[in-house]
Amino acid sequence: MPMVVRDESLPAEVTIYEVGPRDGLQNESSIVPTEVKREFIERLVAAGLKTVEATSFVHPSWVPQLADAEDLIAQLDLAGSVPLPVLVPNERGLDRALAAGVSHIAIFASATETFANKNLNSTLDTQLSMFEPVVTRARGAGVDVRAYVSMCFGDPWEGEVPISQVVATGRRLLDMGASQLSIGDTIGVATAAHVGALIDAFGDAGVGVDRLAMHFHDTYGQALANAFAALRHGITTFDASAGGLGGCPYAESATGNLATEDLVWMLTGLGIEHGVDLNAMVATSVWMGKQLGKEPASAVVRALA
Amino acid sequence: MPMVVRDESLPAEVTIYEVGPRDGLQNESSIVPTEVKREFIERLVAAGLKTVEATSFVHPSWVPQLADAEDLIAQLDLAGSVPLPVLVPNERGLDRALAAGVSHIAIFASATETFANKNLNSTLDTQLSMFEPVVTRARGAGVDVRAYVSMCFGDPWEGEVPISQVVATGRRLLDMGASQLSIGDTIGVATAAHVGALIDAFGDAGVGVDRLAMHFHDTYGQALANAFAALRHGITTFDASAGGLGGCPYAESATGNLATEDLVWMLTGLGIEHGVDLNAMVATSVWMGKQLGKEPASAVVRALA
Repeated sequence: MPMVVRDESLPAEVTIYEVGPRDGLQNESSIVPTEVKREFIERLVAAGLKTVEATSFVHPSWVPQLADAEDLIAQLDLAGSVPLPVLVPNERGLDRALAAGVSHIAIFASATETFANKNLNSTLDTQLSMFEPVVTRARGAGVDVRAYVSMCFGDPWEGEVPISQVVATGRRLLDMGASQLSIGDTIGVATAAHVGALIDAFGDAGVGVDRLAMHFHDTYGQALANAFAALRHGITTFDASAGGLGGCPYAESATGNLATEDLVWMLTGLGIEHGVDLNAMVATSVWMGKQLGKEPASAVVRALA
Repeated sequence: MPMVVRDESLPAEVTIYEVGPRDGLQNESSIVPTEVKREFIERLVAAGLKTVEATSFVHPSWVPQLADAEDLIAQLDLAGSVPLPVLVPNERGLDRALAAGVSHIAIFASATETFANKNLNSTLDTQLSMFEPVVTRARGAGVDVRAYVSMCFGDPWEGEVPISQVVATGRRLLDMGASQLSIGDTIGVATAAHVGALIDAFGDAGVGVDRLAMHFHDTYGQALANAFAALRHGITTFDASAGGLGGCPYAESATGNLATEDLVWMLTGLGIEHGVDLNAMVATSVWMGKQLGKEPASAVVRALA
């Protein structure tokens, strides 16, 4: 384990929002049995993660990897102390989620016109009107709503994405009733000062760091450096994926999510509370890698396994 | 390429000290033909790197991968504008380096007792007396001396390494006549605040950032986050290895150096001058990977190749 050196200007505690079972498995080519998914989620909860996104109520033909959402949810302890949010693409997905009895959902918006079109067959504006009834109905049913915002640092078709456009999209989702934004670097092109500038721009628009989570991809090796930059700007929620599972199937150049274990290693060295048992995480990712027949991408998992 | 966002508190310009041909190839299992090494170095110089460590005058039985040091040096342009330092372990190595006509050497010291013993068959104190005549004779011959200090953030046998011990070792090497220290995280256990604390401790001991280079390994995925932390503390020289070649054969858990391309990507995003042509670098690492029959570790090389 790293030597602990505390920098008092950094947060004292961080929440890791685990996305492996949804964002990870959705982007793996193999289809994992429901039973294995259940064990994966239970092991992640047991390892100390504070939130574990469980699955997605998208149409099964879009994401066959997660076609068993109802079956899986029925096997999970939704009344436990760890929220198990599910992704919901539209009102039909919300109907399924409410019928399944979930208490936390996530919606998936785009910060760019082209990705809204490619991923949601929509425009930047109409995606927001499409989400409005989803958020309103969810909130009315006492369900918490997180909003992913994708392509926040660059877009494979449009190139650079103006910071003001990301902030405007995020603000509208919060105004609609989302409790938290997950700011996604979907194609991994963010670098450290860009991360800081975007967080500061949200602050200038009245959106505090308590409403923001950061979601980094390691396509160009920058994910952990970007997480450190975000910590310096006060961010206390980070999305990460066990072993570094996953990517984004709609964006050709996108590869793996920030690995939970690599983030946990850094936070441990920084003396920041995270509540995760690293050995249990590594064992879980090694086990999941065997189920998928592939080596985990996480450097920490490879070094410790 | 990443969007450029400048943070004026960071340095405007950085020197990348390329260690691939020496630290990289020394730790690869295949022995590369001299002709290929020459082409590798020439391509790195052409890509814009400001220093390229070429080889090592250690005894050939220690490092058979670099047994052709004399032959290689004879084929290189030592009078060019880019220094091509060579590693020198002792006076015998210095004799060979001086006979070959080099103008820059590097010595390799340990910050810990156990590694001094394992790597140099020496003690922490006697290694320094062993280096004294090397440095004095080199300086007398007008040769510049860089000093590597290894195990600065942790040691596989001793565990934590006190910051004061690293600073004391570094100070003695500078007092002896070394122009620059390369602060090595040989086993990759450094995290970001530890990096900052060590740089600050050197400052308190009168050693400015202009005398320090940082040498990170990516064993636990921390290398680039640590480089960003070091930039924030004013460091302007970073060791890196084309494609992420290399590791440390004497430290079991150590894997790859920080990849030059991943560092270049971050510096580009930060608007920091580095002078390196990224496309030429990626092409060089892809070509070198083919010579070695292995995929480069660098995320940027894998994404762009």
